[in-house]
Amino acid sequence: MELNEALYTTRAMRRVKADAVPDEVQAAILDAAIRAPSGGNTQNWRFVVVTDESVRSRLAPLYRRAYAALNETIYAGRLEAAQESGDEATIRVMRSSSWLAENFEQVPMWLMAYSRNDPTGASIYPAVWSAMLAARGHGIGTCLTTILGIFEGEATDEILGVPEGRGWTLKAAVSCGYPLGRWGVADRAPAHQVAYADRWGEAPAFEVPDPLWP
Amino acid sequence: MELNEALYTTRAMRRVKADAVPDEVQAAILDAAIRAPSGGNTQNWRFVVVTDESVRSRLAPLYRRAYAALNETIYAGRLEAAQESGDEATIRVMRSSSWLAENFEQVPMWLMAYSRNDPTGASIYPAVWSAMLAARGHGIGTCLTTILGIFEGEATDEILGVPEGRGWTLKAAVSCGYPLGRWGVADRAPAHQVAYADRWGEAPAFEVPDPLWP
Repeated sequence: MELNEALYTTRAMRRVKADAVPDEVQAAILDAAIRAPSGGNTQNWRFVVVTDESVRSRLAPLYRRAYAALNETIYAGRLEAAQESGDEATIRVMRSSSWLAENFEQVPMWLMAYSRNDPTGASIYPAVWSAMLAARGHGIGTCLTTILGIFEGEATDEILGVPEGRGWTLKAAVSCGYPLGRWGVADRAPAHQVAYADRWGEAPAFEVPDPLWP
Repeated sequence: MELNEALYTTRAMRRVKADAVPDEVQAAILDAAIRAPSGGNTQNWRFVVVTDESVRSRLAPLYRRAYAALNETIYAGRLEAAQESGDEATIRVMRSSSWLAENFEQVPMWLMAYSRNDPTGASIYPAVWSAMLAARGHGIGTCLTTILGIFEGEATDEILGVPEGRGWTLKAAVSCGYPLGRWGVADRAPAHQVAYADRWGEAPAFEVPDPLWP
């Protein structure tokens, strides 16, 4: 796959089929992930590839609890506000997120990413995103979620057998599977509206009214 | 460029020429960045593209101060330990990092990435890494640094005119320029050593003794 196609079309693909992700695709995803940079090249990362149905079934209620907690705190009132203002994009994202929570155990593979000594996240999310881009190259849809680590980290660690006291922290749970939906370029506020030249607020030298790709 | 070539060869490329990054390449880098996912698709990001020499000259002493602070704290004794044990890889990284600090103002472009409401970093580092991969596609070498935000965030914000009290936090300063060095696949601990199947410590189904690409 061409780089730009991956960068532009790796949108959150939460609705996926139950078909398994083949071992060689898992290998390709992981081998791409570990090529990413990490602070001082310390590679303080570990990945647990969850495909076993019984493990997925044990994690699912934790994920649903975390999703409920998210909606009661950070996202409280978000759906209602979107419905009132007719913000279809937000409504779609939230419905799709609900689907993922309701169908957690049906997703054939979850990539659980751990890091340590990484207060900013700069040493794990490039690897996670590389994994997702590599997955896209193999036709696998993914979605980066953080709520398990935020709300149910301890319970998740227990199920996965993560050793205590060694600083490993769950930074992402990435859903992986063959998509039910279609690939496409995600809508975004254009680059020239969120980028400045040399000083905050100064218009950049470029304007990108539409996606540059395809 | 092929996706895998970008994923495998976008290594930290700190030593770069002084030649400017063309406007259309800046646009391509930024437009790729904003296609990345963010939590709830909130796109809470801003990018300041620093190319003006006077701004670079004002940031340079802050970066050097941050680099000194890093070496006195988090990395204290690291170079000495690497020299004692003959850890050439770490010595190379540290020499290259010193070059970047010493030559900060010679780097033609710095991409400063800000985010807010992003405690994990999951909503900014995918965008930063997409920018770096897109840059690679245009032959631009990059390096993700976080020390300005960690040690000199306030002083940096003042120079860039970042508004106070609105939650914007400097998460990355990415050096960008045409490389002096060569592209290549970075050495890493192999995937099967840092990945587990279903439970921490369980060998994965795959083994990847060498990079899968090329």
